[in-house]
Amino acid sequence: MFKTLTAAALATALSATTTTRADAPPTTASVLAATTAADWRRPDPERTLYIDLDAGRVVIELAPDFAPRHAGNIAALARAGWFDQARVVRAQDNYVVQWGRVDAEQAPGPRGGAAESLPAEFDRSADGLGFTPLSDGDVYAPEVGWAAGFPAARDPDTGRAWLAHCYGMVGAGRGLAADSSDGGQLYVVIGHAPRHLDRNITVVGRVLLGIEHLSVLPRGGGPLGFHEDDADHVPLRAARMAADLPESERLRIEVLRTDGAAFAQLVQARRHRHEEWFIDPVGRVELCNVPLPVRMAAD
Amino acid sequence: MFKTLTAAALATALSATTTTRADAPPTTASVLAATTAADWRRPDPERTLYIDLDAGRVVIELAPDFAPRHAGNIAALARAGWFDQARVVRAQDNYVVQWGRVDAEQAPGPRGGAAESLPAEFDRSADGLGFTPLSDGDVYAPEVGWAAGFPAARDPDTGRAWLAHCYGMVGAGRGLAADSSDGGQLYVVIGHAPRHLDRNITVVGRVLLGIEHLSVLPRGGGPLGFHEDDADHVPLRAARMAADLPESERLRIEVLRTDGAAFAQLVQARRHRHEEWFIDPVGRVELCNVPLPVRMAAD
Repeated sequence: MFKTLTAAALATALSATTTTRADAPPTTASVLAATTAADWRRPDPERTLYIDLDAGRVVIELAPDFAPRHAGNIAALARAGWFDQARVVRAQDNYVVQWGRVDAEQAPGPRGGAAESLPAEFDRSADGLGFTPLSDGDVYAPEVGWAAGFPAARDPDTGRAWLAHCYGMVGAGRGLAADSSDGGQLYVVIGHAPRHLDRNITVVGRVLLGIEHLSVLPRGGGPLGFHEDDADHVPLRAARMAADLPESERLRIEVLRTDGAAFAQLVQARRHRHEEWFIDPVGRVELCNVPLPVRMAAD
Repeated sequence: MFKTLTAAALATALSATTTTRADAPPTTASVLAATTAADWRRPDPERTLYIDLDAGRVVIELAPDFAPRHAGNIAALARAGWFDQARVVRAQDNYVVQWGRVDAEQAPGPRGGAAESLPAEFDRSADGLGFTPLSDGDVYAPEVGWAAGFPAARDPDTGRAWLAHCYGMVGAGRGLAADSSDGGQLYVVIGHAPRHLDRNITVVGRVLLGIEHLSVLPRGGGPLGFHEDDADHVPLRAARMAADLPESERLRIEVLRTDGAAFAQLVQARRHRHEEWFIDPVGRVELCNVPLPVRMAAD
């Protein structure tokens, strides 16, 4: 029995990636192994934000298809160096990590022409938006799936669509007013999907790489996980748009397309768990439990 | 606009606990403020496990109503000192943190008569099990709610009930065989609820306090978040049953009962968000987004 408890054998436990025979039903691992170049896309460097911490780089793909004004503001702020004095000010367990400038009221910092407040971009028209539906249902929305590469929801009755607060999604902090966000205060989900935030705040994108540099940060001791002592803030070292770096310095990131056959197979493999470890094959999958694979390009 | 971005004002953003007027509709904060002593219970010290790390104490309430044999084995192992040489061997982002003895095969350690493997306790009969249903639906199970103070699910067709893998739930790692767990390897959920694990592994309880000592641990660099270098393991300093400590050294923890009127009000307050910050009051709530409040007794 202890043989099953060695580190190597433990690696089979709770596995999401256990390999299976070539003739076996598809698993996440076998679907990904069978993908071709056409199944992957390269995020637009004009939509890609690099945030550097001492611990490493966080890569965020912005979602101008849903939040064009916030995405534009964030890019303008990054280009003006506004985030270079920003800090992680909040880390609330099972909820969010949030960063911004703590001196904003006293010293607004260089804004590069970014608006100081923006209209809410909580949702958008579903018209003209490609949408890959998930058939397994959802507690919060009439319909869920993926749009523009992000987890999203849609309401056929109202004709509206919005981004879903899954793990790793990034939003723009706001005050009480719907139009009080400018993209200069951002948060990332580091816990169970707080889907009650959907349509209550502007979601601006998601973390593609490096979320582990944020999710492990010590939790704040104040209300809502804010740090009570400024000394506990974690500084951002730099925030830049990928497009502003020489091409040789850009990460060659690829993301699995959510509108292709490979992704449909991945969803199926996550719904019906054929990895050897699973005893009950499940048969259902929730929106936020479908991974959106990211890899570094081989070339 | 920047006034809304000071630390104090930011504390209103994303708030789950914003206070409201006494005559306002109920919120999480107002429901909790109105609870009486009868709404709270004190976990049985015979079911309460203290795990001490250098960073602090993690308190786990075991669930013998669902996993009696695992709960018994875990208590026996803790009492024998088996966990005192255990280490956190795995931290996988958005999934689990796991601990056990890495030397188990070579040096099994003191087991106090604990069985070396146990039958699976993936589910149990729903007969005789008090169950507080949640009416909002679920992607994975025909019915969800709370039983014995834990998030749970139930299938009226089969008459079975099981614990749900919400954030903070603790399970017993196993190998490929259903009966390969003994409770000596434990994991805790630190990400979006991996509900596909339900009925695939034995859930043994949940973390009541101190999960932030586990959720912030550096993620492992190997497959499935296992640490590749033993030097990255985080040692457990002690693991004891609360009942084995003098009463003066036990934490006076109280947990909100899940079978009373106050909890029903809490669910309603989480379903319909009346905090001032919310613009869309939501109207739905998912099982794993209902908090199970824990506090220290005032006396």
